[in-house]
Amino acid sequence: MTGETDWEIGAFSLPAPAGASDVLADSIRVTPVPDVEANRQLIPSSEAEWVVAVEERDEKNRAIAGVLADQFALTVEEEHIDGVGTYRVTPPEIDRRHQDHLFVYVHGGAYVLGAGEAGLPEAMLIAARTKMQVLSIDYRMPPQHPFPAALDDVIAVWENVLGTRSVSSVALGGVSAGGGLILTAVQKLIGGGHQTPQALYAGTPWTDLTRTGDSYYTNEGVDRLLVGYDGILAAAARLYAGVHDLTDPLISPVYGDFTGFPPTFLVTGTRDLFLSNTVRTHTKLRAAGVTADLLVFEGVSHGDYAAEATSPESLLTYAELNSFLLQHL
Amino acid sequence: MTGETDWEIGAFSLPAPAGASDVLADSIRVTPVPDVEANRQLIPSSEAEWVVAVEERDEKNRAIAGVLADQFALTVEEEHIDGVGTYRVTPPEIDRRHQDHLFVYVHGGAYVLGAGEAGLPEAMLIAARTKMQVLSIDYRMPPQHPFPAALDDVIAVWENVLGTRSVSSVALGGVSAGGGLILTAVQKLIGGGHQTPQALYAGTPWTDLTRTGDSYYTNEGVDRLLVGYDGILAAAARLYAGVHDLTDPLISPVYGDFTGFPPTFLVTGTRDLFLSNTVRTHTKLRAAGVTADLLVFEGVSHGDYAAEATSPESLLTYAELNSFLLQHL
Repeated sequence: MTGETDWEIGAFSLPAPAGASDVLADSIRVTPVPDVEANRQLIPSSEAEWVVAVEERDEKNRAIAGVLADQFALTVEEEHIDGVGTYRVTPPEIDRRHQDHLFVYVHGGAYVLGAGEAGLPEAMLIAARTKMQVLSIDYRMPPQHPFPAALDDVIAVWENVLGTRSVSSVALGGVSAGGGLILTAVQKLIGGGHQTPQALYAGTPWTDLTRTGDSYYTNEGVDRLLVGYDGILAAAARLYAGVHDLTDPLISPVYGDFTGFPPTFLVTGTRDLFLSNTVRTHTKLRAAGVTADLLVFEGVSHGDYAAEATSPESLLTYAELNSFLLQHL
Repeated sequence: MTGETDWEIGAFSLPAPAGASDVLADSIRVTPVPDVEANRQLIPSSEAEWVVAVEERDEKNRAIAGVLADQFALTVEEEHIDGVGTYRVTPPEIDRRHQDHLFVYVHGGAYVLGAGEAGLPEAMLIAARTKMQVLSIDYRMPPQHPFPAALDDVIAVWENVLGTRSVSSVALGGVSAGGGLILTAVQKLIGGGHQTPQALYAGTPWTDLTRTGDSYYTNEGVDRLLVGYDGILAAAARLYAGVHDLTDPLISPVYGDFTGFPPTFLVTGTRDLFLSNTVRTHTKLRAAGVTADLLVFEGVSHGDYAAEATSPESLLTYAELNSFLLQHL
């Protein structure tokens, strides 16, 4: 990445995505224009400022979790597994094909957001849409608990789950930072000769915590959810990694080895700041001979397919995830 | 697409893609910066100007075809099928698993480029990499022959091929305009109750000839091969469509019906002006219940995976295409 070869790309006007569903396009039409400069200023500089920044965002997601729980009549039980907090999300009716299956879920939030019930919205959507039981991991996070606390928690829950059920019945999935966590966890499991899940779901995974990848540039100001790398995202990457290098494969799994991975389902969109993270991971999986299935949605920003839960993009995502799980579990 | 909701995206600097292969990234480093303004001026205004513009570009591709034929020791035979020109490309050794297979290929070039041997480079790569026989269609093009001449030629060759061999042994594929042509051809075949190919390959297909799709905007000046929509591409769209609407499904197949399609393999890249064309087609196929497999390569502009024939991106594309064909033929 030599400075002298950088290309200067001019300013342009971006219309709402006419090729996306009406639900998504209409939602984008009423979204405030992403403000790259304001986003760059969002850098908490003390633990107290992190707590405030996180709480503002988590409050909204706790409210969404409450709405989804009611809407889909989900049962949510807190459970401590080997000292790690988890939530067991059970839909009112389990698909009989999923009777013996468990989806272990790892939430996103740049390694700082999503503690407690704020980490539950997508776990709830998966439980509701696939009609299977989901176990969501409330892993430890910085500032109090930097790397490798979160990874240790995911692996501790995974090993415990395997003590009570057959590995062939368990899928592991996560979104954004959670997508990065499940991929690093599986690399670590394979490296240690341990059993791996039967199928993986990596939703727009944060697989490169450095600013490497075309879409960190081409989708800056285009992604309505993440907006840009510089700001809270870059700060969260540093906060999570602590003294470790951001290119450590256990922090940025795109630099790791995907040999021997289980079948993996990946989702992203044309407006996703993590489009490159997702497709780089997908092609690395395929180059390693792994069954890996990629969906890329027109007009979809980071995690929009989960956020716009009633959109055709969202319904197709979880229908395809369900088919994938039924095929591989 | 209402003007008042357009977002103004600021100028930015784009580094060479450190997440792509060295072969591709190094090639991009020595590429002249795509010039959007100059590209906008490239609009031939008479038939004579079209001939000159086309010949400049075709000359280069004929030279590439010559190099590939030598490099891979390919045999190329011209053949007229029902009045349509074709080239039969045979590799020195046929994979015995492909002994009875035929890949019918439709070249790209915005419906104006690629006549004669200028349309052969990717047909040759497919023959060389998959070790199967390829029949490349030298379909008629504007200015002399606008829509539906090209489509009629593809269908004529297809129907003729079926007269001499089992449908289960034939794949149909194309890139760019050729990708659009094979998709419209299959929609027309299904609509008429005719037999369809056993597997399809749609490389970065031109499925929407209007400027609809995020990547027409986000990848303007980012795609080193197409550069932008405004210019020769928009002019070629109009030249091909003639009096017909650009959103006619037989011209822009993304507006058509994908029900009943055969398994389809699609390829694009993060820098591709046709990223949105490709992924919109992929998700429409999946929504219609079709087996459709998508590869998206980091750093790859329109057709770069074919143009950079020695890159890992290119090798993986044709290895995966070959696996796909072996699975479905």
